[in-house]
Amino acid sequence: MSGAVRFSVSLGDDLLKHFDAMWKGDGHPTRSEAVQALIRQSLVMKEWQAGTDVAGSVVIVYDHHARALASELVDVQHDYQHVVVATQHAHLDHDNCLESVIVKGKASDVEQFVKRLKSLKGLKHVSLVRTTTGTDV
Amino acid sequence: MSGAVRFSVSLGDDLLKHFDAMWKGDGHPTRSEAVQALIRQSLVMKEWQAGTDVAGSVVIVYDHHARALASELVDVQHDYQHVVVATQHAHLDHDNCLESVIVKGKASDVEQFVKRLKSLKGLKHVSLVRTTTGTDV
Amino acid sequence: MSGAVRFSVSLGDDLLKHFDAMWKGDGHPTRSEAVQALIRQSLVMKEWQAGTDVAGSVVIVYDHHARALASELVDVQHDYQHVVVATQHAHLDHDNCLESVIVKGKASDVEQFVKRLKSLKGLKHVSLVRTTTGTDV
Amino acid sequence: MSGAVRFSVSLGDDLLKHFDAMWKGDGHPTRSEAVQALIRQSLVMKEWQAGTDVAGSVVIVYDHHARALASELVDVQHDYQHVVVATQHAHLDHDNCLESVIVKGKASDVEQFVKRLKSLKGLKHVSLVRTTTGTDV
Repeated sequence: MSGAVRFSVSLGDDLLKHFDAMWKGDGHPTRSEAVQALIRQSLVMKEWQAGTDVAGSVVIVYDHHARALASELVDVQHDYQHVVVATQHAHLDHDNCLESVIVKGKASDVEQFVKRLKSLKGLKHVSLVRTTTGTDV
Repeated sequence: MSGAVRFSVSLGDDLLKHFDAMWKGDGHPTRSEAVQALIRQSLVMKEWQAGTDVAGSVVIVYDHHARALASELVDVQHDYQHVVVATQHAHLDHDNCLESVIVKGKASDVEQFVKRLKSLKGLKHVSLVRTTTGTDV
Repeated sequence: MSGAVRFSVSLGDDLLKHFDAMWKGDGHPTRSEAVQALIRQSLVMKEWQAGTDVAGSVVIVYDHHARALASELVDVQHDYQHVVVATQHAHLDHDNCLESVIVKGKASDVEQFVKRLKSLKGLKHVSLVRTTTGTDV
Repeated sequence: MSGAVRFSVSLGDDLLKHFDAMWKGDGHPTRSEAVQALIRQSLVMKEWQAGTDVAGSVVIVYDHHARALASELVDVQHDYQHVVVATQHAHLDHDNCLESVIVKGKASDVEQFVKRLKSLKGLKHVSLVRTTTGTDV
């Protein structure tokens, strides 16, 4: 944690009016927080492009009746234990499971892990949400 | 679960050669699986646009020293218990926490939940990964 | 055109340091311009979501040896002359053409135009770049 | 140009039903064309990631009353004449101009050109649409 700095931004008054309407609609509490959110979002995207240490969540949906799949998922996660932090499992309905895997590490390792998951037959959807370790954001 | 159908696709041979190189590089086991993955991804996007029942994960990164935040996060999640399935928490470093919340429900309710989270002061990043309940995908 | 307003934003000093490094790397001339660009980008996205008057460019790549295609493209553009402003054509190589169509109008009409283009057999790629009429941005 | 190949894809019948509804809604003429469009879109994204020869369009919106801007835009385009193919200009309203620049070349050069444009003060929006030269797609 460190100190806060104030700096000023210049904007056309029409543009400001439209921006104010937007962030209020999006639920941000103040204009300063809304600008912060835009800045943070752009930094998170850069971290992933730069391939530095990142965090995220890999979400997998599959039909658990394909029994081999559940054990293959465990195997792959163990192979990538240098990026897998923890896993949580939800039963979506009688057939479908959602598994959410928190990941942390090098962007390239995380992307390699996602690629390996996609090589498993029978997964319905694999998606990766890119966020930050918080260290620089 | 239901039966499988085969159908044929016509593609220029050059295009096919490039597609084959790509899906092999991405880790898909067969060409048919690679096409399936593209089809499923496009259906998942449609489900979210159509606003039907969806599933996903909301990932939040914050500094836990902002103590009020942790309890506010619990409050908001209870307000949205009709979409919040389960939560998992990881300690990224001394300061930063990552919370991954599995959600399921109407797309508009999930998006309302994300908006509400963004109204909390001090969160570093909120992101939503859109996946499917698996019912129609 | 209207007057300019200054407002202040509060940011952690570490976060500011990282943001400064990023916008300098991206080529923005000042911090204030970098914040403006983020704000404008978010407003443009909202305009398209809100379906108000928008502007953009539809880019089409095709092999001109499929002769019927060129005349079908002209037909479709005339059917949508309420959104088509102007067209420009580049010869990419011996076979391939790129046509860039400036569009302006209701977001839904533009998207309908893109959908109609996709119904033509033989196009290699159709893409839409979403920008603004500039009125509110 | 080269010959066409047919190959078969296996899909659950429920999934196929949903896919058929989607591509019909999107305007694709046949299922095979719909699959082709997904394959081409994924190849175009790869070309840009791989940084090979690409094509695209850079769309710029600005207020022409900022007179220096128009001549700066010409200067920058001449500096990047190795990627700039042609330019077209539309008058959106009394104040706002849209300029659409067709580009072709190395992905990194195109991105450098966009970065240089963003360094100009007073542009309202710069966006890049990524498409293909058509050679491999």
